[in-house]
Amino acid sequence: MSRAAPTAPLPGYEEAAALIAAHAARLARHRPPVETVPLGKASGRALAEPLLADRDQPPFPRSTRDGFACRAAEASTHRPLVVAGATRAGDAPSGPLPRGAVWEIMTGAPVPSGADAVIMLEHVETAGSCTRTVRLLPPRTLEKGENVVARAAQARKGEKLLPAGAAIAAAQIALAASCGCDALRVYLRPRVAVLATGDELVPIRSAPAPGQIRNSSSRMLAAMVSAAGGSPWILPIARDTARSLDAALARAAAADLLLITGGVSAGKFDLVEAALARTGARFHLTGVRIQPGKPLVFAERPRSGTNSSRTQCCFGLPGNPVSSAVTFLLFAAPLLAALAGRIDRGPRFALARLSAEAKAKPGLTRFLPAACTFAGPLPTVAPVPWEGSGDLAAMACANCFLVVPEGAHRSSKERLEAGATVSILLI
Amino acid sequence: MSRAAPTAPLPGYEEAAALIAAHAARLARHRPPVETVPLGKASGRALAEPLLADRDQPPFPRSTRDGFACRAAEASTHRPLVVAGATRAGDAPSGPLPRGAVWEIMTGAPVPSGADAVIMLEHVETAGSCTRTVRLLPPRTLEKGENVVARAAQARKGEKLLPAGAAIAAAQIALAASCGCDALRVYLRPRVAVLATGDELVPIRSAPAPGQIRNSSSRMLAAMVSAAGGSPWILPIARDTARSLDAALARAAAADLLLITGGVSAGKFDLVEAALARTGARFHLTGVRIQPGKPLVFAERPRSGTNSSRTQCCFGLPGNPVSSAVTFLLFAAPLLAALAGRIDRGPRFALARLSAEAKAKPGLTRFLPAACTFAGPLPTVAPVPWEGSGDLAAMACANCFLVVPEGAHRSSKERLEAGATVSILLI
Repeated sequence: MSRAAPTAPLPGYEEAAALIAAHAARLARHRPPVETVPLGKASGRALAEPLLADRDQPPFPRSTRDGFACRAAEASTHRPLVVAGATRAGDAPSGPLPRGAVWEIMTGAPVPSGADAVIMLEHVETAGSCTRTVRLLPPRTLEKGENVVARAAQARKGEKLLPAGAAIAAAQIALAASCGCDALRVYLRPRVAVLATGDELVPIRSAPAPGQIRNSSSRMLAAMVSAAGGSPWILPIARDTARSLDAALARAAAADLLLITGGVSAGKFDLVEAALARTGARFHLTGVRIQPGKPLVFAERPRSGTNSSRTQCCFGLPGNPVSSAVTFLLFAAPLLAALAGRIDRGPRFALARLSAEAKAKPGLTRFLPAACTFAGPLPTVAPVPWEGSGDLAAMACANCFLVVPEGAHRSSKERLEAGATVSILLI
Repeated sequence: MSRAAPTAPLPGYEEAAALIAAHAARLARHRPPVETVPLGKASGRALAEPLLADRDQPPFPRSTRDGFACRAAEASTHRPLVVAGATRAGDAPSGPLPRGAVWEIMTGAPVPSGADAVIMLEHVETAGSCTRTVRLLPPRTLEKGENVVARAAQARKGEKLLPAGAAIAAAQIALAASCGCDALRVYLRPRVAVLATGDELVPIRSAPAPGQIRNSSSRMLAAMVSAAGGSPWILPIARDTARSLDAALARAAAADLLLITGGVSAGKFDLVEAALARTGARFHLTGVRIQPGKPLVFAERPRSGTNSSRTQCCFGLPGNPVSSAVTFLLFAAPLLAALAGRIDRGPRFALARLSAEAKAKPGLTRFLPAACTFAGPLPTVAPVPWEGSGDLAAMACANCFLVVPEGAHRSSKERLEAGATVSILLI
């Protein structure tokens, strides 16, 4: 008589996430190779060197308003002040500003020397035709520095504006442009092998026989890898035999990271762990107390090839597509980010208001496909009805995952109540 | 004696957002042209036709566990049941299951006919060698349907899984793959002209003279346009003259959407509105009670060219880069999404816990560059110190915008307090 062997206690979500973060920090010590890309193709990449200010930002005291550069103390007397000149955006810095005078100025233009504030156009009354004067309308007064950004207030020449490893998106592109960079040194995208396993899988274009399904995970993970900064490499489906898996794992050794789907549960034909072990893998995780995604495997194996000091991280993601997606976002994406040289590694959570109750499970943190009304400033979220972790149709209608903490069952009711502020995992 | 003309009351954020949403809904009635892309290149696009299930999902009653298919009523007696056969994932559906028997089964495999539940491997004890038996360990019992997803529970053959206009990301790619689609019909990306205006601007590679700055907005907006589903077209910088603007606006008429930066404030050389008016534009918005971004212009003009029934939407975004970014995300991105055929149009807000106080401004909804700790399940957010809407360096260190509602000043304190749950605009 035999029973399934008692399993070692699995780590909870937080513990597993901390373990991944620690490995990610260790792996990040190796800097990835570098390439140069034009600014227009830099989105989604990570800076390989710090971005430095090529001059003071702003390079001159800069007016933030259309109006009149002045001395604040003079303006606040509400006496008429003579308009002594005008500076448009793009004009060279001018001045000095005579006593008792103002200087007409446009937003973005350099404030003339001697002036210490700018009166907004909307706050003056003007008089005169030949010699025009303006006065600040009472009771308003003006303080030194008002509507002026001092030279170098944003950054000094040579100052580090962004560190190496910063993710590049629109704002970073704008900042690089402002410093005169029309190309950037970025880290190469890590090559990520995607290996689906399972005798039930057939390629997308095949007509599945009864009992078979199409391989949807490889394309899904490839898209997630691209979004997370990697370069996906889809391998042919591996069969549930030691021979097929061994061959696939040997081939995959050329990748920087390996994602395997399927074959990591308790079944007779879940051969992935054994195959990884045959390649010398050490196992950091063989399960996490989450749902879906509990049988997650995270291992590291020696890398055959030239650079033998490096290892290859391998994830065995559960084969059901919702499980694969959740475990990728929670665990594989942060590790991939580290291999990509990024300092900000995710996953990304936010809060929302729960609009329907959600059932907790004792001892498991749940990540349920959910729909969030992101469009309003008070976003609400509700789980999408689903038929378990094989339910791709439900996940494709979701736009986030609702986090139901393990602890939720400790309260008097074993659920999150409608109206509660809850965590969501952003996709 | 003259004063600045009193301006009509500006709409608040919500009102302006509703106006944009209404125009977006109207424009969405025109379906964009369609092209076919391989599944591996479909991320970020919008479906041009509904995705239909090509067969039942799942195509057979499917086991969600490794274990033993059974009749729940028999298993719940805790009598030993004979293992009558085995079905692996990928095997053809089998059965019928004899009375008093179970059928060994793997996750993802078809449940044999006659069985109505699956006992988890971890919940049985096994006995025998020649004729193997298993029994469900007491006190556990099993219900009909447990650990089985019924045929077609997720979708029936022919059922609409995704509507036209659905945004395509990893989950939608997986669903399409599961239906045998290795290419998808998607809407063409709208062509979005990006026109920076201002005599102070020089191209990125130029060395700016004193008083000049580099054009950072065009590359920034191009990246935002790409991220929002459009195809950016950067035009040369237009000068602050009617002639230069008229020529640029004529050229830009070939685009599906026009984004202009600069020239929309109250200054003497803010000529954009006048230039748009000369091309027959009607103005839907000439300002919004937000900070930054108050001088936003939203207009629509007749489109010269072949298809004269169509109009071109034009945004005059304030020239300061933080203002351009905020107004793009809030107003231009949703309109662009409609032109791209998308049904989900944004912007995207979420909630977070405020970790530092944030000052409100009477009569203005503020969108402050902010840093959110997205990585933990309890995200906190704080404004990034900034020197106003020209402060690119601050925005490049932010990862969201903190929303400080207009209403915040109505409470006794004119600020959002640390610890409050606040809205953030996701980037």
